[in-house]
Amino acid sequence: MKANILNILKKARRGPAVVLAKDFGAIVANTGLGNGWKVVDAGTGGGWLAMQIANVVGSEGVVTTYEIRPEFAKIAKENFKNFGFENIRLKQKDVYKGISEKKLDLITIDLQEPGKTLKHAEKSLAEGGFFVAYCPQITQVIQLVKDLKKTKLHLVKVTETTERTWLIDGRLARPEHHLLGHTAFLVFARKSGAAQI
Amino acid sequence: MKANILNILKKARRGPAVVLAKDFGAIVANTGLGNGWKVVDAGTGGGWLAMQIANVVGSEGVVTTYEIRPEFAKIAKENFKNFGFENIRLKQKDVYKGISEKKLDLITIDLQEPGKTLKHAEKSLAEGGFFVAYCPQITQVIQLVKDLKKTKLHLVKVTETTERTWLIDGRLARPEHHLLGHTAFLVFARKSGAAQI
Amino acid sequence: MKANILNILKKARRGPAVVLAKDFGAIVANTGLGNGWKVVDAGTGGGWLAMQIANVVGSEGVVTTYEIRPEFAKIAKENFKNFGFENIRLKQKDVYKGISEKKLDLITIDLQEPGKTLKHAEKSLAEGGFFVAYCPQITQVIQLVKDLKKTKLHLVKVTETTERTWLIDGRLARPEHHLLGHTAFLVFARKSGAAQI
Amino acid sequence: MKANILNILKKARRGPAVVLAKDFGAIVANTGLGNGWKVVDAGTGGGWLAMQIANVVGSEGVVTTYEIRPEFAKIAKENFKNFGFENIRLKQKDVYKGISEKKLDLITIDLQEPGKTLKHAEKSLAEGGFFVAYCPQITQVIQLVKDLKKTKLHLVKVTETTERTWLIDGRLARPEHHLLGHTAFLVFARKSGAAQI
Repeated sequence: MKANILNILKKARRGPAVVLAKDFGAIVANTGLGNGWKVVDAGTGGGWLAMQIANVVGSEGVVTTYEIRPEFAKIAKENFKNFGFENIRLKQKDVYKGISEKKLDLITIDLQEPGKTLKHAEKSLAEGGFFVAYCPQITQVIQLVKDLKKTKLHLVKVTETTERTWLIDGRLARPEHHLLGHTAFLVFARKSGAAQI
Repeated sequence: MKANILNILKKARRGPAVVLAKDFGAIVANTGLGNGWKVVDAGTGGGWLAMQIANVVGSEGVVTTYEIRPEFAKIAKENFKNFGFENIRLKQKDVYKGISEKKLDLITIDLQEPGKTLKHAEKSLAEGGFFVAYCPQITQVIQLVKDLKKTKLHLVKVTETTERTWLIDGRLARPEHHLLGHTAFLVFARKSGAAQI
Repeated sequence: MKANILNILKKARRGPAVVLAKDFGAIVANTGLGNGWKVVDAGTGGGWLAMQIANVVGSEGVVTTYEIRPEFAKIAKENFKNFGFENIRLKQKDVYKGISEKKLDLITIDLQEPGKTLKHAEKSLAEGGFFVAYCPQITQVIQLVKDLKKTKLHLVKVTETTERTWLIDGRLARPEHHLLGHTAFLVFARKSGAAQI
Repeated sequence: MKANILNILKKARRGPAVVLAKDFGAIVANTGLGNGWKVVDAGTGGGWLAMQIANVVGSEGVVTTYEIRPEFAKIAKENFKNFGFENIRLKQKDVYKGISEKKLDLITIDLQEPGKTLKHAEKSLAEGGFFVAYCPQITQVIQLVKDLKKTKLHLVKVTETTERTWLIDGRLARPEHHLLGHTAFLVFARKSGAAQI
């Protein structure tokens, strides 16, 4: 039996708060993330989002993930090694200071001030490439949308995704009582040339 | 600029109702769909779900999609050809009568009576492989969960995913008034051996 | 300072599961419950819903509440007495066997098989009066909607109400993580004469 | 057949955007609004919220509603007269300049800058009385919560209420496709003395 990313995530060491599958699913849904993509991800945390992306982009793609805090970089490094992710590169660097990768298909930012990465993202994204920020607070979203107006990236959408689970067993058929009411807002922006495609 | 699956879906010919990105995202999130997977999908419709899956599994993976109605098979075939999906195989066959592919990582069913495919799915899935049914009606879900009890597949979860979009522009900052309240319930089941991993 | 129903509910003795304020709010919203209404409620439980209704209908209205189980009737009786509800009448009777009140503006049913009260509700409701069933399971809803077709009551709507709360404190501004995902579906039916008004 | 507030609202003349039943229900649910309450409401608009409140507080209660714009005051006045609301008093005044009523059980504000009414609300509310603001934008909520900190009112909760309707008809049993995704956030604050009750 092959390893499954969901099983891997259950066994992996956790760093700080992780990007949940439902939000990763929304990223796939709204960017078209696929096989062979070149992606930059920051901050790494325990590497949750990086591993989920790496599982999709495959050996023809690559995920470069930035983490400035050594304690999280260590956890992520271990996870990547233990579960055999050869298409992830970890950089212990401050993404606010620069992104050296170019022609990226996707940049995902899970940091306090995502707007600080915009000037680097502008240069590093390929035409048509996506910028996605994971923002727990709506105040972060409001600031980021303001910051976006000064760049060549255009706002595509701001979403929040809810996954409701049901209990189904004969006459019992109802939504579960407990629902995760919030993780984060996702802000999707895109770099497009003369014509959007 | 490379083609993006989202752009492709905007240009592709539509068949009947399509599986939206939010639900595709939920499938990725809850199965761990990744590069290299072998997938069977039925019914094809216009090929929406097949193309989204193909975009993730890449050239090392393969999607075989079953469609019995010739008019939809034709639309899907055109879409796959026009957009260069070399990893999709279309079969104009009745999936209720059998699935010839084996060791599948995932089977997705978007049909009136998904329970009719269970005996075939049991045999065709690899250990640990996922069965996902897209059910617009809760009555379909109730029937399917009942049918699942007679198989070796076990129910993992039943979900519905909502994507809410926000309008953010300076002092304006609120959810959009219009929300898509429902597309379908997703039923996730899995085939696992002695120990689930 | 006057007593407030919310404060009363915090102090009242609980019986079985209680009808929460959000669902009571939905009942008010969708029936137009107001001052002076004549209401029948069953089963009483700890009297939660009866007290909330009584708080609105006031001294010109009346709530008659049916509870067959002596242990709950006792709790409810105490609550009504302790908090001074003079417009509530408790009957320790089986509402499936009959409703003796007539010309009712509203009947609310929180029982396993609400359909069993329909033939009584038909007779006891005033023209334009509302029948509301609180159904935790969607299977109850499906059965009740079927049962309704054999009566003079017409289905108005089936709803589920979600109350999401936000944490707002300076830069922190986000929905709470925990959300109550489900209590019950509410089925609203109405008795109307020649013309609906 | 008696008039029902829902029927009245269907026939009443509309002013600007109206407070929908679902949000009125949430106000009832979260304040305990009941028979006999003394309420101030601003701005009136077409009188939607005032009429819904009046329907609950009854002849022992009273709703005083402030509207500065003559065109809306006219519409509201007509509605109150046509539908016989004897417990509503309309004032064509600027509520930002003062609230002359005292010992109020509830103040509801549906205005651009609800914070401007707080200093008046503090004096006009009875101990334990509620202040509710209807805020379409989350930016209004953030500002109001900040303003509240300078007053004797304490924040109780910030909510948004969603009502999802279902289509149920035999095998068809699913949520409606169209859902009203947003109307407004409701901010609930309360004036309480030494001990909250």
